[in-house]
Amino acid sequence: MADLEIIAIHDIGEVRPGDDLAELIAAAEDAELRDGDCLVITQKVVSKAEGRLVDIDPDDPLSHKPLVEQESVRILRRRGELIISQTEHGFVCANAGIDLSNVERGQAALLPVDSDRSARGIRDRLRARHGVDVAIIISDTFGRPWRRGVTDVAIGCAGIQAVADLRGTTDALGRELLVTEVAVVDEIASAADLVMGKAKGVAVAIVRGLEPTWFGRGSVVDEIVRDPADDLFR
Amino acid sequence: MADLEIIAIHDIGEVRPGDDLAELIAAAEDAELRDGDCLVITQKVVSKAEGRLVDIDPDDPLSHKPLVEQESVRILRRRGELIISQTEHGFVCANAGIDLSNVERGQAALLPVDSDRSARGIRDRLRARHGVDVAIIISDTFGRPWRRGVTDVAIGCAGIQAVADLRGTTDALGRELLVTEVAVVDEIASAADLVMGKAKGVAVAIVRGLEPTWFGRGSVVDEIVRDPADDLFR
Repeated sequence: MADLEIIAIHDIGEVRPGDDLAELIAAAEDAELRDGDCLVITQKVVSKAEGRLVDIDPDDPLSHKPLVEQESVRILRRRGELIISQTEHGFVCANAGIDLSNVERGQAALLPVDSDRSARGIRDRLRARHGVDVAIIISDTFGRPWRRGVTDVAIGCAGIQAVADLRGTTDALGRELLVTEVAVVDEIASAADLVMGKAKGVAVAIVRGLEPTWFGRGSVVDEIVRDPADDLFR
Repeated sequence: MADLEIIAIHDIGEVRPGDDLAELIAAAEDAELRDGDCLVITQKVVSKAEGRLVDIDPDDPLSHKPLVEQESVRILRRRGELIISQTEHGFVCANAGIDLSNVERGQAALLPVDSDRSARGIRDRLRARHGVDVAIIISDTFGRPWRRGVTDVAIGCAGIQAVADLRGTTDALGRELLVTEVAVVDEIASAADLVMGKAKGVAVAIVRGLEPTWFGRGSVVDEIVRDPADDLFR
């Protein structure tokens, strides 16, 4: 018997501005939601549902670059066409999180204005209309310094702590754990990506079997975004 | 039916220098290994089995700091007692990956000398003696710039590509994917940590249901470690 199960939701269909994601997910045949599940939803469909789409010149591969500057509060590095910047939310990522994959040609998707709020909205609607108590994580794909390859991380959450603080607990040998703030929402976003892939068009997954003590009030922006004054690499 | 299952292996017992991890895992009751499984093993038990333990003064909380300098090829940042450095493997992490949790009082565990080789050894022994073809990931817990909280990442692998390269494939709308090198071994390490926790003494987990095309030759050091000349934050 598995301790953790991850289930891809295949059939929510193409998401359009104004769509109600909670209803699309609740109506999906793969999605038999249970209390205590965590739904991971990719940023792209949240941005689409919220109408965070901007027209760009489909024939100019750089036509979204002015948007990147506009969506950034600080540029950290530039190399060629690559811009690493800090967004208004405090995220540090490439191109201010703007990308062109899985959107219609001639459009670019911006990050949700407030992904924690987006997550709370979906969670509240699923609870109110379908009577199911699930946590929500909104995920996006970020690069990292020092390590090649991208991974999925959380950009918003609701109903789950972003960081599980184990300080004060002991390890298996009874010694106090010191460095023990685990970014569980980022680990969950990465786990869900393993069944989504970038090419499969799977935008939502259920993660079932998470530690019950992690559930509760949470916010990626409040808990995960590091204060720039505290950051050794900004 | 879940697309991905993660199963904690609880009963490998306390690992000591010279122990054969492959045998301890194969003997565990939770571990009914199947071809195509991926085993995630935490660095701590690999270091213990390989005897990468050093005596320190149990009454001096800083007595492992000279080891940190010795295990580092380059110091990137210092703040108070915190050292962020690059190890011989090319990993950038706190305290050169040396830590004191889950080891006996008076000892510190160093990283394995070559964790890809460690992974290959365990994989080869499981195949030769138990006839099972599994991938191996050795995981460790690293912090990151810009985001609070630690996550588990891979420091070694065998039988699985560290990075799945999707360039040249198309997204769900038929557009070519551009940024598509996914660090799948890091995502798998994070996923496994969700059933291990830092406090539970679970050092091994099975991840079942991974994309079959990811299996094959792989190396964290060759594929994940970014060339410093290529790195914007070193």
